[in-house]
Amino acid sequence: MLYLIGLGLGDAKDITVKGLEVVKHCRRVYLEAYTSVLTVGKEALEEFYGRELILADRETVEQKADNILKDADLCDVAFLVVGDPFGATTHSDLVLRAVKLGIPYRVIHNASIMNAVGCCGLQLYNFGETVSVVFWTDTWKPESFFDKIQKNKQNGMHTLCLLDIKVKEQSLENLMKGKKIYESPRYMSVNQAAEQLLAIVQNRRLQGEEPEVTENTHCVGLARVGAMDQKIASGTLQQMSTVELGGPLHSMIIAGNMHPLEIDMLKLFAVDKSSFEDNECQRNT
Amino acid sequence: MLYLIGLGLGDAKDITVKGLEVVKHCRRVYLEAYTSVLTVGKEALEEFYGRELILADRETVEQKADNILKDADLCDVAFLVVGDPFGATTHSDLVLRAVKLGIPYRVIHNASIMNAVGCCGLQLYNFGETVSVVFWTDTWKPESFFDKIQKNKQNGMHTLCLLDIKVKEQSLENLMKGKKIYESPRYMSVNQAAEQLLAIVQNRRLQGEEPEVTENTHCVGLARVGAMDQKIASGTLQQMSTVELGGPLHSMIIAGNMHPLEIDMLKLFAVDKSSFEDNECQRNT
Repeated sequence: MLYLIGLGLGDAKDITVKGLEVVKHCRRVYLEAYTSVLTVGKEALEEFYGRELILADRETVEQKADNILKDADLCDVAFLVVGDPFGATTHSDLVLRAVKLGIPYRVIHNASIMNAVGCCGLQLYNFGETVSVVFWTDTWKPESFFDKIQKNKQNGMHTLCLLDIKVKEQSLENLMKGKKIYESPRYMSVNQAAEQLLAIVQNRRLQGEEPEVTENTHCVGLARVGAMDQKIASGTLQQMSTVELGGPLHSMIIAGNMHPLEIDMLKLFAVDKSSFEDNECQRNT
Repeated sequence: MLYLIGLGLGDAKDITVKGLEVVKHCRRVYLEAYTSVLTVGKEALEEFYGRELILADRETVEQKADNILKDADLCDVAFLVVGDPFGATTHSDLVLRAVKLGIPYRVIHNASIMNAVGCCGLQLYNFGETVSVVFWTDTWKPESFFDKIQKNKQNGMHTLCLLDIKVKEQSLENLMKGKKIYESPRYMSVNQAAEQLLAIVQNRRLQGEEPEVTENTHCVGLARVGAMDQKIASGTLQQMSTVELGGPLHSMIIAGNMHPLEIDMLKLFAVDKSSFEDNECQRNT
């Protein structure tokens, strides 16, 4: 049996009781290690589980999946994923390959960023399409996510922005030389995401547009959701560009229309409560 | 401290290790018992936790919240919610009341139906607004959720349909007589939801519309997600009206545009694989 097990979002103890039992009895246990991170590392998990984990980077999962699935028809193998196995990143590929090989599988769910962001008070059923905000480079500054955010906002929906993670990336130089030397991991902060969005707002104005999303649009910045030291800040997009949220992982929400109860919740986390008394917020209620 | 603790979706062992530790040490532990159900009952939870739980029905949570929060500034109180405390139903009211009383709170997240439906292979970031499908009565047959589904579909998005739950409902007669006699709980099945949707499709045609959602639209029926006996079936809306999924809780997804990987996953659960080779599916890829 292949078990896909969600680890939740905070630390080692966020695994479910059922998930922990399975981890303890499996022959091999892999830890998916390229789409997200816990606030604790592999060693802390190994100590808590009392067993060794095998790190599975992108290459292993995408190109050597058969290693993971080896003998999984005869013994139990676990594949651990931060959050939920079908959350922000789905592991459909691995499931489809297992099924093709006649290996049964089971999913042990957990919280993922896709549902845990509800803790800010914005209601999950009022979210539209989720977008990914990628790190811009000197030569590549995609804006397509902005159009999706605007479309959601026009429909009154909130937008969850998943912020870029660069793990085990090679520099162009090392890539071309075929050197497997990796850059330090980089995690996009709410500040960086807000700055990119503000730049797009300016671009659109230069192009004669009047964007729906502006520096005054209500947003929520979230850091380390589910961890003991999680931080939530609500305010305008402009405020998000300077708010201090600490270490990774960060996510950001661009609010659509808000119910009074949602506004009351966001006020708990307001950078500046007066921003919830302006015209835009009133109009949105 | 007030702890809001998600129990996940299946049975007693779906609580997180952290959640279980908190449950064991709290002075009082409430079980929210009107918006969802686990496949196990209160007694099974009490046995697993080794302690007594206090059932909190809608009346207790909405009108007697101060009882729940009593002394929570001096001792620890837990409020258990099936799924996640900020999932399909948010408990913002309780949080706001706690904050007003100066009581600190903490959320221990878990899987909710809002993210666990990802197990069918449709990607969570491609979902639009979530809708609730309510039981029709002889005199009340709302159709507004259908317009939301159509809007999502026009935008290429999937729609999660949360299906009605009637717990502790009084008949009109008993309500008028002031008798606190409650009807048996009712949980809407995928069959019932599909039948209501098919009726709306017919209504719209009678009104001269050509609805975007038809009997041939791809759907997913899900039952007891996260439990050992969960069932998933994919097929047309017409097929959903007769598919056998067993006991509650059920949810349904109306698919929008599908990525080839999403189609491959849905084929695993197909009532009839040939339905994935028709024109609509090809057009959607």
